[in-house]
Amino acid sequence: MGSHFKERLYDPDSRLVGMFVKFPTIETMEIVASAGLDFVIVDMEHAPLGVETVFHMIAISERSGMAALVRLRGHDTATANTFLDAGASGILVPHCSPYETAKELITDMVFPPNGRRGSGGGGRATQWGIDGAGEYRRGGDSGVVRVPMIEDPEAVEDIDRILSIGGLDAAFIGQGDLGQTLGDRDKAQALVDRALAACVAKGIPACTTAYGGDVRARFEQGFKFLAIANDTGLFTRAVQQRLSMVQEQIEAAKGQAAKV
Amino acid sequence: MGSHFKERLYDPDSRLVGMFVKFPTIETMEIVASAGLDFVIVDMEHAPLGVETVFHMIAISERSGMAALVRLRGHDTATANTFLDAGASGILVPHCSPYETAKELITDMVFPPNGRRGSGGGGRATQWGIDGAGEYRRGGDSGVVRVPMIEDPEAVEDIDRILSIGGLDAAFIGQGDLGQTLGDRDKAQALVDRALAACVAKGIPACTTAYGGDVRARFEQGFKFLAIANDTGLFTRAVQQRLSMVQEQIEAAKGQAAKV
Amino acid sequence: MGSHFKERLYDPDSRLVGMFVKFPTIETMEIVASAGLDFVIVDMEHAPLGVETVFHMIAISERSGMAALVRLRGHDTATANTFLDAGASGILVPHCSPYETAKELITDMVFPPNGRRGSGGGGRATQWGIDGAGEYRRGGDSGVVRVPMIEDPEAVEDIDRILSIGGLDAAFIGQGDLGQTLGDRDKAQALVDRALAACVAKGIPACTTAYGGDVRARFEQGFKFLAIANDTGLFTRAVQQRLSMVQEQIEAAKGQAAKV
Amino acid sequence: MGSHFKERLYDPDSRLVGMFVKFPTIETMEIVASAGLDFVIVDMEHAPLGVETVFHMIAISERSGMAALVRLRGHDTATANTFLDAGASGILVPHCSPYETAKELITDMVFPPNGRRGSGGGGRATQWGIDGAGEYRRGGDSGVVRVPMIEDPEAVEDIDRILSIGGLDAAFIGQGDLGQTLGDRDKAQALVDRALAACVAKGIPACTTAYGGDVRARFEQGFKFLAIANDTGLFTRAVQQRLSMVQEQIEAAKGQAAKV
Amino acid sequence: MGSHFKERLYDPDSRLVGMFVKFPTIETMEIVASAGLDFVIVDMEHAPLGVETVFHMIAISERSGMAALVRLRGHDTATANTFLDAGASGILVPHCSPYETAKELITDMVFPPNGRRGSGGGGRATQWGIDGAGEYRRGGDSGVVRVPMIEDPEAVEDIDRILSIGGLDAAFIGQGDLGQTLGDRDKAQALVDRALAACVAKGIPACTTAYGGDVRARFEQGFKFLAIANDTGLFTRAVQQRLSMVQEQIEAAKGQAAKV
Amino acid sequence: MGSHFKERLYDPDSRLVGMFVKFPTIETMEIVASAGLDFVIVDMEHAPLGVETVFHMIAISERSGMAALVRLRGHDTATANTFLDAGASGILVPHCSPYETAKELITDMVFPPNGRRGSGGGGRATQWGIDGAGEYRRGGDSGVVRVPMIEDPEAVEDIDRILSIGGLDAAFIGQGDLGQTLGDRDKAQALVDRALAACVAKGIPACTTAYGGDVRARFEQGFKFLAIANDTGLFTRAVQQRLSMVQEQIEAAKGQAAKV
Repeated sequence: MGSHFKERLYDPDSRLVGMFVKFPTIETMEIVASAGLDFVIVDMEHAPLGVETVFHMIAISERSGMAALVRLRGHDTATANTFLDAGASGILVPHCSPYETAKELITDMVFPPNGRRGSGGGGRATQWGIDGAGEYRRGGDSGVVRVPMIEDPEAVEDIDRILSIGGLDAAFIGQGDLGQTLGDRDKAQALVDRALAACVAKGIPACTTAYGGDVRARFEQGFKFLAIANDTGLFTRAVQQRLSMVQEQIEAAKGQAAKV
Repeated sequence: MGSHFKERLYDPDSRLVGMFVKFPTIETMEIVASAGLDFVIVDMEHAPLGVETVFHMIAISERSGMAALVRLRGHDTATANTFLDAGASGILVPHCSPYETAKELITDMVFPPNGRRGSGGGGRATQWGIDGAGEYRRGGDSGVVRVPMIEDPEAVEDIDRILSIGGLDAAFIGQGDLGQTLGDRDKAQALVDRALAACVAKGIPACTTAYGGDVRARFEQGFKFLAIANDTGLFTRAVQQRLSMVQEQIEAAKGQAAKV
Repeated sequence: MGSHFKERLYDPDSRLVGMFVKFPTIETMEIVASAGLDFVIVDMEHAPLGVETVFHMIAISERSGMAALVRLRGHDTATANTFLDAGASGILVPHCSPYETAKELITDMVFPPNGRRGSGGGGRATQWGIDGAGEYRRGGDSGVVRVPMIEDPEAVEDIDRILSIGGLDAAFIGQGDLGQTLGDRDKAQALVDRALAACVAKGIPACTTAYGGDVRARFEQGFKFLAIANDTGLFTRAVQQRLSMVQEQIEAAKGQAAKV
Repeated sequence: MGSHFKERLYDPDSRLVGMFVKFPTIETMEIVASAGLDFVIVDMEHAPLGVETVFHMIAISERSGMAALVRLRGHDTATANTFLDAGASGILVPHCSPYETAKELITDMVFPPNGRRGSGGGGRATQWGIDGAGEYRRGGDSGVVRVPMIEDPEAVEDIDRILSIGGLDAAFIGQGDLGQTLGDRDKAQALVDRALAACVAKGIPACTTAYGGDVRARFEQGFKFLAIANDTGLFTRAVQQRLSMVQEQIEAAKGQAAKV
Repeated sequence: MGSHFKERLYDPDSRLVGMFVKFPTIETMEIVASAGLDFVIVDMEHAPLGVETVFHMIAISERSGMAALVRLRGHDTATANTFLDAGASGILVPHCSPYETAKELITDMVFPPNGRRGSGGGGRATQWGIDGAGEYRRGGDSGVVRVPMIEDPEAVEDIDRILSIGGLDAAFIGQGDLGQTLGDRDKAQALVDRALAACVAKGIPACTTAYGGDVRARFEQGFKFLAIANDTGLFTRAVQQRLSMVQEQIEAAKGQAAKV
Repeated sequence: MGSHFKERLYDPDSRLVGMFVKFPTIETMEIVASAGLDFVIVDMEHAPLGVETVFHMIAISERSGMAALVRLRGHDTATANTFLDAGASGILVPHCSPYETAKELITDMVFPPNGRRGSGGGGRATQWGIDGAGEYRRGGDSGVVRVPMIEDPEAVEDIDRILSIGGLDAAFIGQGDLGQTLGDRDKAQALVDRALAACVAKGIPACTTAYGGDVRARFEQGFKFLAIANDTGLFTRAVQQRLSMVQEQIEAAKGQAAKV
């Protein structure tokens, strides 16, 4: 009943595009799915989304054939595991560095004996228990993606060790935070390039943001999946554009009225 | 603490623009207010919005200086009065015809002795009782707009009598439903023109939809306020446009990869 | 598991006090119950409460031994029956007049063959079906109160006929609306007295508001149960009183600081 | 993206089974869908479900390939149309009689010129506007079922006229309410048989409840779809059975402990 | 107003049974309470329940005389203390090991000077402040149970030290996770036996799951309270059983129809 | 669109008063704002408030010109940053000690390079992206207050070092917890005095509770802002007072009735 995201991500021919979503609604999720995007990243870090809302967003997204990945609020891997039990396709861990921290966090989301994820087999991910324990374990291993966000300079320093953590399935390279921290776009891009190169070398699918005309370039550079927009930004600009389009007409109409 | 919509609407120099909203969120309300629109019409008729959600939307909108009008689900004037108690700037009554029906519905929203609206003075509209009963009555009379939707051929037939109903403050001329019912755009526009002319003759501010380049024309034709967009439509198109913009880049990148 | 309100109301020695509640919370319900009130009237008419919120308020109130009566939004007896199925102790119908209207509305809430209430025996009122159909019918007949609000002059005109409607269990005499409509407190009180006298004559328990020092007088006049406050009003005044109490101290402290 | 319920219902070889649902959760909807039922009837009449909850239940059900029908709270066809705009597969109208009433109610849910349903084409039923106005009208005509509940003796009296109402797509014969009203199971079954015969004669698919071993018999009698359970009842009995199964073991263990 | 769970648990003659609950509803809580279970464990670890939902579940459960214990999502003792302030009867801490971790976590939930629980005396647990600070402290000490979940092999290794932590009131021995981690049921049961023996030796009430016919055996083995089912599992199986019961009848009816 | 709290707090002439709030409603927030208080502290530590509820409370409070500060549940600075992105005026961190812990927690809420707050510039705090990245950084630095709660004896020991942490903007001195922990009011007040003196010496605005007649004294002692009440306490006492006021009247009326 899910979106088979991991499988699609590891298909050599695929190039996947998605969006960050912050509106707390299933309406927007269905619109994004119907429009044809491959995945959403539900942004708990920067939006005040509650767990029940995120759960509904995951359920409707996956039922619509679009993967729901969740960006955690902080390093809250307990909530991550609750969402994996609920059928999310994957988890993004913000500021997942240095290596020792990253190792702890990724391992929290892996089943024993290699990790510490608790067993809760009767949830949404197993069709509420209709699928058995074996399928639960299989899905938790090979049906989800655990994705560290590489968005601090120290993370790039540690990139090779981080990418070798067991259970890590992909990486998100956060050019926004790198740029803010370094205060220099070029230095940030150099770190992006370095992190990407490490991913490509190890065959780890990498993601970043591409909000403008840089989609083709990013794919050709080696990224495997891209966040091409965010919902609040798209909506804000659409409202602004519509209003600016009519503003002139309003003034013209007022002028006309004044003349009469 | 409200948006003084009625006062602005009756200002001879104003031309006001707003949007229909169907997303159940205060986020979208704040975005629309920040962008600068004058009002929203919260669409309970075509969106499954609950009363508590609509209440939050009204409160945040009015606190942001943007008027919140509510399009009722059916002829539910009891809910309308609850929202007027809660500080909404006005109510749109869908399919408010024929005349006898319109008279009943508008009168439901007027205080005795002229109408049947029950008295509930301790709510949001009076700052939770900080303003007294006199202010409650004054606000309920002259601080809100009761707006029939003229969207059936029979409503246009009855337009003069409808516009003379006590407590009616403005009119919305629904070209969408008129067009659907008549199955003929030209016939529908003739009815729009006829209804508008009646409004203009009586000094009743009229509203309609103007989703394209027709804003100036509609204002010059005599409309006083216009719904220039709806939220779900704007968002859907924005997602589609963004995806279509990158689709070509994705294909190009895939082609490039295939060649390598 | 309920509050046995009807039984208590018909006990000749009881004099019951309650509150109108408009905050959408179970916290306030528990506070009011713990403080010792006999009942609340959940005010859907003047507060934008959704049905799920009201359901939670009913459940926690009844489980706390305090009766939950619901004032309908308009004449929505369909929702009334849903709440009776959910274990509410009674329903107040606002503006329940003239007689013909009152008869329709009260009868909507009575089981066939005398009325039109649909049968839905597996809900909260029967402990989710643990009690059987017989108990469901018995509870729907003798475990709930159907209470018209006598708050229009025409209702007082029709009072004797209204009080004789089958299934009517008590009456609320709304001095607030009567006063607003007549614009004259004395005339309104004359109608209150007349309606009360009719109730007393027929042995119908009557309720009204008594927000000040008039509780004893109203009981001695013959009222059987009284709404002695409302939650938003109590809270607003408590905040205002606390602030006014400290305002002087703030100014004094500022003055002291200025002198230093 | 829906369940194609109407098409399946009119397939001569199909026999469909569903459940009434009253829990306000998408979890239960997914369980019922995964178990393999064909439809649910979301019971707003007897459960205090809010419109947003029902909307989420509709969306997840239809996305799971299971039809969501909504039993209205009262005769609230305005809400029915909101849910049709939101992609529900159909509407059940409780106590849909006598004929004049039934005609009004069914016609409320049909588009002009034959009915009075307002046009709101940008909602969930059209993939949020991705499908156009033509598809919206087509879906509103031939993609949904309008189902009167025949559950009063007067409805059976009027059955032939009711079944001829334009826009009526199926009928639910409510043996529960008929039995309660008549107070006699045999008389009630005679009316069920009579109503069913009318449906069969006109080729109108009929539904009723079959909560025990009567499923085969009801299908063979001519019913086309059956409600075979309700969620709260199933859950209550399952908890009771589990507890009764262990009660003896608890007592035995206590006895054993006492002996030691 | 609570369920006096701790008192009942320490009664030598009692043997208590409860359920894990994951549905986000008060309906299910009331059903379980009405059926007669002694406690529920609200499962935040494996179900996406929000804090407000859990709060409502606690309130209705305790008001119904059934204890509400909360299984935390991760090691979030801050939320645990919020729920103790809200009147929960106890807290289960998942994967509460090794000893040093367990000591930190249990101590977080004990008042100073022995622990670090912050003081918040005006909440639900004190009847919203009607009970004073002394009663708040007394209830926080002797009215709640703090329960580590012994579900990792290392926890069993540390069992004696863990059971000696101040403020620990009972223990839950998690055979499910032990079995998953060890991949061997017999080895897991050996650890269960060892952990139970340590509890019995120290007079610490122990709990585990007993979902089948093993209830008597577990009680006789020394367990004091048992989780005998979970809500989603019970419901899923009930739906499946009902459908499988009618499946044959459906096929028979179809066969009959085909023959005709 | 916010309340400019930090600016007001640093105005030498201001003395600000606020309340703790625990009811999960925007109604109470508006009442408190309309009554004229300067700020609220939304109490996530001792009330089971979900993040979406807190978000709505922040938005309506700030839009009403009243500052919304959030007391965290535990040391959850990830959620703190989400609320700063959402436009909260500040954060209170409970039990923010010893120094090393305090330093970690405050630094979590400061942007790089001095701290670790992640960058999320398109949220409510920037008018949903209408304000740019520069304004986002400026607001995050100088538009919010980060406030440790000094409420453990060890915190007072470390007070000078804690007050020197970069990004710390004010301090809350928690006399309630200090008193509970020490079990001696005088000793606790000595620590309060010591902590306050350190704040005054460094020019750090300090806050504490002043629930009685001690407002003037606390301001004169050097506190800059005070929590003068909490919502649940005010409401509980108001209900109790109202009931106690009428209790005598009820008894008198009953006595009168008995005599007749």
